[in-house]
Amino acid sequence: MINGLVADSIPLYQISAWSMAILCRGFTQAETAFLTDCMLASGSTLPRATDRPRVDKHSTGGLGDKVSLVLAPMLACFDVDVPMLSGRGLGITGGTLDKLESYTGFRCDLTIDEMQNQLRQIGCFITGTTPKIAPADRKLYALRDVTGTVPSVALITASIMSKKLAAALDALVLDVKCGSGAFMQSFSEARKLAESLCATGKRMQVATTALITDMSQPLGDMVGNACEVNEALSVLAGGGPTPVRELTLRLSAEVLSSVARFPTPEEAYSNLSSAIGDGRALRRYQEMIEMQGGRFHEQLDLARSHTIDLRTLLKYQPNTQPSHGTAATQYLHSIDGQQLGTAIVQLGGGRRKLGDVIDHRVGLEMLVHLSDSVDLSSPIIRVFCDSSSSLEAALPLIAGALTFSETTFSPPELVFTTLS
Amino acid sequence: MINGLVADSIPLYQISAWSMAILCRGFTQAETAFLTDCMLASGSTLPRATDRPRVDKHSTGGLGDKVSLVLAPMLACFDVDVPMLSGRGLGITGGTLDKLESYTGFRCDLTIDEMQNQLRQIGCFITGTTPKIAPADRKLYALRDVTGTVPSVALITASIMSKKLAAALDALVLDVKCGSGAFMQSFSEARKLAESLCATGKRMQVATTALITDMSQPLGDMVGNACEVNEALSVLAGGGPTPVRELTLRLSAEVLSSVARFPTPEEAYSNLSSAIGDGRALRRYQEMIEMQGGRFHEQLDLARSHTIDLRTLLKYQPNTQPSHGTAATQYLHSIDGQQLGTAIVQLGGGRRKLGDVIDHRVGLEMLVHLSDSVDLSSPIIRVFCDSSSSLEAALPLIAGALTFSETTFSPPELVFTTLS
Repeated sequence: MINGLVADSIPLYQISAWSMAILCRGFTQAETAFLTDCMLASGSTLPRATDRPRVDKHSTGGLGDKVSLVLAPMLACFDVDVPMLSGRGLGITGGTLDKLESYTGFRCDLTIDEMQNQLRQIGCFITGTTPKIAPADRKLYALRDVTGTVPSVALITASIMSKKLAAALDALVLDVKCGSGAFMQSFSEARKLAESLCATGKRMQVATTALITDMSQPLGDMVGNACEVNEALSVLAGGGPTPVRELTLRLSAEVLSSVARFPTPEEAYSNLSSAIGDGRALRRYQEMIEMQGGRFHEQLDLARSHTIDLRTLLKYQPNTQPSHGTAATQYLHSIDGQQLGTAIVQLGGGRRKLGDVIDHRVGLEMLVHLSDSVDLSSPIIRVFCDSSSSLEAALPLIAGALTFSETTFSPPELVFTTLS
Repeated sequence: MINGLVADSIPLYQISAWSMAILCRGFTQAETAFLTDCMLASGSTLPRATDRPRVDKHSTGGLGDKVSLVLAPMLACFDVDVPMLSGRGLGITGGTLDKLESYTGFRCDLTIDEMQNQLRQIGCFITGTTPKIAPADRKLYALRDVTGTVPSVALITASIMSKKLAAALDALVLDVKCGSGAFMQSFSEARKLAESLCATGKRMQVATTALITDMSQPLGDMVGNACEVNEALSVLAGGGPTPVRELTLRLSAEVLSSVARFPTPEEAYSNLSSAIGDGRALRRYQEMIEMQGGRFHEQLDLARSHTIDLRTLLKYQPNTQPSHGTAATQYLHSIDGQQLGTAIVQLGGGRRKLGDVIDHRVGLEMLVHLSDSVDLSSPIIRVFCDSSSSLEAALPLIAGALTFSETTFSPPELVFTTLS
């Protein structure tokens, strides 16, 4: 089937019926691994450039996820290669390449030779995939997108793993997001996908670990392209929001102990923290940005900021009772990630369809997080946006994405579980 | 979806994925009826020609099923119209139109005006469907055929019922075949299909009854086109094999009592028998054949006959032990209808693909039936075939289709159950 898809010798109506059968009936782990292997074999793999182990991370995508920007250069400080083939954003999902293109001059189109050379010199790159890598996935994904067959665990697994394993990895860590802002909304769905990914990795002789992590609110404070790069820089400089720093270290520690750079994830974690503390990770980041043509020292341009307090926000919630609006103390109860992501798209920071041009300067800053207490005058969110008409269009979406309640509760854990 | 299919405005890869989802997940009865209605509405229906009730029968197809040839003219003797839109054979399934074309000059391409006129004059016709009737079914079936989505109860139901109901019926009786020579091999599959057909008929205000009938052996003695016409003539003349006569009367009695021509199927049955006994049904048959251009009085040409005894047959069964071959008395234990049907195709009496030319003169005559006792010199089957090379190619298939055992058993019932 996969060879026929790539060679155009099997009609798309047969491939789509087959995809729907997989969605409905599922695949065994052996079938999923075999499919992954066929998709991997449909293209070329990245030749080895050094003797160092190769590691990578993949996230299933969520709001404010800037982990890759910190993780790749940080891991490269520990004598491993991080050949990160990444993607662009579509719909509410941001893309690492879009974030990096906030730097003037940054190139996401490295050739295979340039990738190899960069690994040899600094041990990491973040670039777009090439047409030669897993071409079956590109075709199959485009077909799944228009035939209702995206949400199949087997097909998602084969898609992710065939692209990632094309980099000839020794170890892979997966960040499977779970919650309102993620593809997998429930924990049980996320666990099924995590199990499938780990099992497939293992069958293909790649040490694979998965963390199931919270996406009931954006990761960190910043959502948007240049905004998120700035937040990643804060983390690399030893500051930044705790969840971003913590998740990046946890994911990095797993993959580093997988290739036995340290005996346990805990030891790896503490060594990784030092690489942030002593500036090594930040220096490696700067080398990566500059080697790929980016002007590291130019400050990233952001759009004009507008701070929105609760009183203003409630005006855009048509169903809010006046009594609700006047309660003394309330708590941020839930964030609808789909809707918040749509607000970013509305502001021009994301794509409605492939090929849309995006504005790297727009974004959101969450000034409160789940379970934080607020009153009517509390600033809730900062919107980076130059156009007042875009702001007016985005505010109802933002207001609709947030709910407040009068009862307190504990926010969800950052990492729900680890599988391997 | 159906409008988009007919207008070519929805790509086939979306229709095929949707068909596979229906196959895997099933449809409710309401969904199936709605789909049927959409497919029916994709084309035109046959306008009413007379004030008589309209009735018809549909069979899911099986070896030796010549019931339609007897049923249509017989029912027309009872002041009902029988507008029978029928099909051609493909693979092991024979087609009523092919059987009727054994008559020189017989036309299966009546125009709508000719159909209406023939109903007014003699109350029945058997002809091919026209491109205007249920065009969605033609397109959807062609796609299902190449995407593994044929065996869906919902899609089979909508396909059958949209075509049948295009004739604006008042009552319909269904012969759902079950066994080795049928599409539905198990009783539980056949019952699911029968229930779906009846429920859909009822939701569309057509009195619908289904009989689940045996297809573990051919119906009657004859399989093949001209062969079967001859057997139908024997039944119309008051003779012929009991199962053919019995099943035809049972199906006809159901549909005739559905339109209240008689208070019970039993009374209908006895009146229908009389129409055979006094020659009315045969005369109506002759009128139908002649009105559609067939030369009723010309004897149908059959190929040269070859009678095969058990000793000869066993030579073509590679796995038969010699000891087996020497047992004094054996019983015909099972008939693989798929393989026997393949023998007919091999002889040239069926089509491998649409458009193949068929030889109406070839066929098989079963000289024994399930549970009949035989010895080595018993004649088992008669093959009608002019070419000795075709005969040599068909004999291993025929021999492989039949098994014999030394233990006796009762043959299956002809009618397993009736649903309405």
